[in-house]
Amino acid sequence: MPAKVLFAGRPAIWPVYRETLAAAFDRKGIRAELFDRCDDPATVDYIVYSPNQALTDFRPFTRLKAVLSLWAGVETIQTNQTLTAPLARMVDAGLTDGMAEWVLGHVMRYHLGIDRHLFGQDGIWRGADPVPPLARDRAVGILGLGTLGLASARLLQAVGFQVSGWSRRPKTASGIRGFSGREGLHQILSSSEILVLLLPQTAATKNILDTETLGMLPEGAVIINPGRGALIDDQALLASLDSGQIGHATLDVFRQEPLPADHPFWTHPRVTVTPHIASETRPETASDCIAENIRRGQAGEPFLHLVDRGEGY
Amino acid sequence: MPAKVLFAGRPAIWPVYRETLAAAFDRKGIRAELFDRCDDPATVDYIVYSPNQALTDFRPFTRLKAVLSLWAGVETIQTNQTLTAPLARMVDAGLTDGMAEWVLGHVMRYHLGIDRHLFGQDGIWRGADPVPPLARDRAVGILGLGTLGLASARLLQAVGFQVSGWSRRPKTASGIRGFSGREGLHQILSSSEILVLLLPQTAATKNILDTETLGMLPEGAVIINPGRGALIDDQALLASLDSGQIGHATLDVFRQEPLPADHPFWTHPRVTVTPHIASETRPETASDCIAENIRRGQAGEPFLHLVDRGEGY
Repeated sequence: MPAKVLFAGRPAIWPVYRETLAAAFDRKGIRAELFDRCDDPATVDYIVYSPNQALTDFRPFTRLKAVLSLWAGVETIQTNQTLTAPLARMVDAGLTDGMAEWVLGHVMRYHLGIDRHLFGQDGIWRGADPVPPLARDRAVGILGLGTLGLASARLLQAVGFQVSGWSRRPKTASGIRGFSGREGLHQILSSSEILVLLLPQTAATKNILDTETLGMLPEGAVIINPGRGALIDDQALLASLDSGQIGHATLDVFRQEPLPADHPFWTHPRVTVTPHIASETRPETASDCIAENIRRGQAGEPFLHLVDRGEGY
Repeated sequence: MPAKVLFAGRPAIWPVYRETLAAAFDRKGIRAELFDRCDDPATVDYIVYSPNQALTDFRPFTRLKAVLSLWAGVETIQTNQTLTAPLARMVDAGLTDGMAEWVLGHVMRYHLGIDRHLFGQDGIWRGADPVPPLARDRAVGILGLGTLGLASARLLQAVGFQVSGWSRRPKTASGIRGFSGREGLHQILSSSEILVLLLPQTAATKNILDTETLGMLPEGAVIINPGRGALIDDQALLASLDSGQIGHATLDVFRQEPLPADHPFWTHPRVTVTPHIASETRPETASDCIAENIRRGQAGEPFLHLVDRGEGY
């Protein structure tokens, strides 16, 4: 019997995913019926999901085998108590590579001081004084060594940067200079001229950058946050930017999105706001990730990328 | 007898080079007298040189063994008919790596469309639509596969870009998809969304980007020129920018430097001017390059990085 798969993402992306999911099912030899509306929840085997108001109660889906998230971050859905079926994160090769490239682009922008020139097109010929360091003499720290953090760290290493990474629990064999725990957090912060946030949003990571930890960074350090808005205490960051303790911040994610037009981040001279575009799930590769989990579910094999709902990611 | 070495660069950099050259001589066991003024040109063995008005006539330096340029580009001095001694270019590992990093930074800036966000801090939340391609789907062309072009090509390859290179004569074994000659120029231009200019300035490369060759690029292609200003026909570029044939240009070098304050490049909305800062000779590594050539000269060994004055580089 074909698997019944409900697409419960933003309606705008349904026309694309209808095609790419069908193609991915074909490639893996999966027999499935794919639909975006459902009259009888009790017949649904899998839900392809991104946060939306139309589906918040999972109790009617009595034979659900898994919810397959279109997003890497699952903090919205993972606290939903009506969901008892397995929940899998998106691990999309396209999203991962895109994120690493976005991180590299903004690290290079800070490393080279590109903004100074972009905003200095005024006819005044300013030299480079002093000569900026080479990548090999520039320390970049990454908080979070999951799929996205590790891919970003490896790309930065390939370019030559001194890369360190921090994770809540010790990780080995990554080839990255690794720190963990509270003491490790102090160590990586105190040596990072450029800091990248790629932690999941959990109870343990909320406000991980606050007045105390922002103060551990070298004076003038810059912050790049493509992770989650709640990792940063906004007021503490604004105060650190005003004092010069933090030199600049590029923020792609926020506690409230879209970021309200009157939020001080928009007008702060030391903040660049980007509208949650660091990386996007790419339908073709994302459909492969989803199809693989449906193949596994149908074959009775364990799912990939399962969320540990105690840990929150 | 110690070698007599005259430093004939900008006076501002003499205090630094006095130290770094002396240290480099020590490291190589070279006995040398280093000075920045000279009463008796006939006693000078080597001149460490960057373009300056104080030294344009080399005829009084009757026992000169070599002129060692502090610059990678030698178009100013190489046409000086009073210079008959060997002329060596600067090949500085620091300058090379710095150039590759600068090129990568601006390629990433265009690849990700960073400017749109930097200049859009207006409270309007704009999404990414469509999703930009990954580096593996982005074609970057580099004109010039000398030390700087090749280093830039390799770094872009390490990040994942589709990199092609063009040189006037065929080059092999570079690991880069290579083109050469006039036909090859047409081919690389027609496939490069981002084009980087790292050719030397010679009679053969002057105005290599003119109305005809600019028209070979895909519509909306962007140009990054950290090479030499004379590689581009300025008026042809301005016309191509106005028509949209060229989407944007980042120019670090110009026919006249400093670029005059009233030059249209400064105010053109599709041009970023940077003040010849793409990469700088770094005194420590540059002093190693010069010391090695003096060691060779004193030992009767062939000099490195000699300029072919027929070719012009």
